Amino acid sequence: MTKKNAFYAQSGGVTAVINASACGVIETARAHKDKIGKVYAGRNGIIGALTEDLIDTSKESATAIGQLRYTPSGAFGSCRFKLKSLEANKREYERLIEVFKAHNIGYFFYNGGGDSADTCYKVSQLSEATGYPIQAIHIPKTVDNDLPITDCCPGFGSVAKYVAVSTLEASFDVRSMAKTSTKVFVLEVMGRHAGWIAAAGGLVEDHGIPVVLLFPEIAFDESKFLARVDALVKLHGYCTVVVSEGCHYADGRFLAEQGTRDAFGHAQLGGAAPVVANMVKRALGHKFHWAVADYLQRSARHIASATDVKQAYELGKKGVQLALAGHNAVMPTIERVSDAPYKYKIGMAPLSKVANVEKFMPRNFITKDGFGITASCKRYLIPLIQGEDYPAYKNGLPVYATLKNLPVAKKLSPFELP
Amino acid sequence: MTKKNAFYAQSGGVTAVINASACGVIETARAHKDKIGKVYAGRNGIIGALTEDLIDTSKESATAIGQLRYTPSGAFGSCRFKLKSLEANKREYERLIEVFKAHNIGYFFYNGGGDSADTCYKVSQLSEATGYPIQAIHIPKTVDNDLPITDCCPGFGSVAKYVAVSTLEASFDVRSMAKTSTKVFVLEVMGRHAGWIAAAGGLVEDHGIPVVLLFPEIAFDESKFLARVDALVKLHGYCTVVVSEGCHYADGRFLAEQGTRDAFGHAQLGGAAPVVANMVKRALGHKFHWAVADYLQRSARHIASATDVKQAYELGKKGVQLALAGHNAVMPTIERVSDAPYKYKIGMAPLSKVANVEKFMPRNFITKDGFGITASCKRYLIPLIQGEDYPAYKNGLPVYATLKNLPVAKKLSPFELP
Repeated sequence: MTKKNAFYAQSGGVTAVINASACGVIETARAHKDKIGKVYAGRNGIIGALTEDLIDTSKESATAIGQLRYTPSGAFGSCRFKLKSLEANKREYERLIEVFKAHNIGYFFYNGGGDSADTCYKVSQLSEATGYPIQAIHIPKTVDNDLPITDCCPGFGSVAKYVAVSTLEASFDVRSMAKTSTKVFVLEVMGRHAGWIAAAGGLVEDHGIPVVLLFPEIAFDESKFLARVDALVKLHGYCTVVVSEGCHYADGRFLAEQGTRDAFGHAQLGGAAPVVANMVKRALGHKFHWAVADYLQRSARHIASATDVKQAYELGKKGVQLALAGHNAVMPTIERVSDAPYKYKIGMAPLSKVANVEKFMPRNFITKDGFGITASCKRYLIPLIQGEDYPAYKNGLPVYATLKNLPVAKKLSPFELP
Repeated sequence: MTKKNAFYAQSGGVTAVINASACGVIETARAHKDKIGKVYAGRNGIIGALTEDLIDTSKESATAIGQLRYTPSGAFGSCRFKLKSLEANKREYERLIEVFKAHNIGYFFYNGGGDSADTCYKVSQLSEATGYPIQAIHIPKTVDNDLPITDCCPGFGSVAKYVAVSTLEASFDVRSMAKTSTKVFVLEVMGRHAGWIAAAGGLVEDHGIPVVLLFPEIAFDESKFLARVDALVKLHGYCTVVVSEGCHYADGRFLAEQGTRDAFGHAQLGGAAPVVANMVKRALGHKFHWAVADYLQRSARHIASATDVKQAYELGKKGVQLALAGHNAVMPTIERVSDAPYKYKIGMAPLSKVANVEKFMPRNFITKDGFGITASCKRYLIPLIQGEDYPAYKNGLPVYATLKNLPVAKKLSPFELP
């Protein structure tokens, strides 16, 4: 059997460390040139496979690939595109096989979250359904930390570190100002369904900061929330609120959806933070400030967690090793061995058990009143934000890689995306 | 003459490096124990002086004071409180003199921005008006970078570095997503009247990022703005917008004031970023994300500029040296000698020329179309964000100092603040 090429793609929202996984995949494949030919990356994720828009990573120097470890975002472009079932969209799957055949691709490495695990699982089944040999390996990635089986997901540790550091710094700020000015600071963080990212804000409690966390897992109760803020401001003179973007009322209505309209009558898309801040102002009269971290949090490679970067690289590397060992339809995982000292090993999960399963915060990680995190949660989180892994700087800014991303010559006729 | 004690206070919005100036003041005063007694800090700024709520910094260890160099926020508390003129509020000035007398204070170090320079100038005149000898020195501090005479203001370099780094990282993120998702990212930064902070976002242009800057100095023209975004998205597939909070229309109306009301009819305080983002969506149809950095930007000690930290310390130190040399009513300044290599010296400005003067972006720092920065502006900005000066970390979080802040025993009867 001639050696096969590999396909690698990045999927869904990018992170500070997804390129570290790409680096792990490409460097490990390069170290096994006897078994793996070239690594072709999909330009803009799976869309690159469907449209035969492949990037030849063999044209990138070892230095450039090494720099990916320090570069946030998706170096080859990502996309939000979920393949339908084999039955519902046979044409797309047939196209994938055509592209794989045309470019002698036998390994499919897909780097993403829950939706991508599902896509990867579907691709893994192509081998059986079509008779074309393809090994599909999912490399986990998501700031949401909501994939099952794995103890944590690459991307999460860095966003958690960013949120914990930012919450600490902004809380010191509001503490300084509280006597005559701002008494409540509200930070909105990501997390549509799971509160893992907001939980990281709770780590500042051990630094003496009064903080209220609002999770998507806990139905928002305005009067209980206001009572909590009132009590903390009376006790400490100020408090900080960290609110998940997905925080909602018991009836499912998001805090961010307030039916707000601007002067022209247009519906106004706002964040949860200004809603919470105005609520505090109206009920308690406190001056507030609010911030929405949005993309800043997930792209903040400058303050990435060294643990997270290391694991992202290792899982990319392990993905290639699993493929070389003949596996299909699997995902490398982090298996925690101990909290302190933090020890873990790399495991493996079948994609059939990963796809379409979302992992929420366990109830025992959230305090009884719903506004904080427990000691168990802190034991879980602290190892994940350990260590700094600074990029190099030039002229005051980080040196981040922009690859050449040269295309592979097309061999097939064009394909229209649905 | 017996040696006098010193009073030090932090004023207005705090920064990532105002405590580095405090460190410079206290360490330098401690090195001159023959001439300066104790350094008393005002708890919550000038309010601490009026209410005789003084902090005895001599109770803090050398280690704790040294840690201030790495700690964001105002370690002694700050306040927003502007003294009226001597004629309008004689009572407050008399009280200051009473407190100074009671605690043998002969040196007044005031660490703040424009309003504080004015307060400091008024205090400097007390000596003449009342016959009580007091030397008032203003230590510059403001993220707004709007003090006159000094080439730059401590606090600005760090917020500029934060904004440049964050804009770079988030732009890499949106570039990855643009094919099927977000095409426009909007970051709102501080700057009510002057666009210095937004200008820092323009430094990412040299990294190939298409960016549109919106300054308070340039009246907002919606159609020109939308045309610019449209052109950039057509050319690059995406673009980033950095908008000053103080950006406004020609008639003075702020972008953030859209007369927005929530479902209950309450006026909604929003940011400029969501307004700009929704404007782009309506006119051009692009998917957007937006962030509001708020306090995160000015408290981000974790990514402070080494140049800024060094200058903040040096100006604190110089303030004490000027006092020892007999000066009154002055402010130490940064005098730029050359851009590259960056060289500067510490100068001195009379407070009469500093108080109540605001320094805006010069027109030749802004491109003709009003949406970018010129090469002159880049030459000005680049030295100010040079170098990293990382704090120590423990358990994944920066080690920031929380002082004991022990009170000095009161000697006077209470004073009611107006």
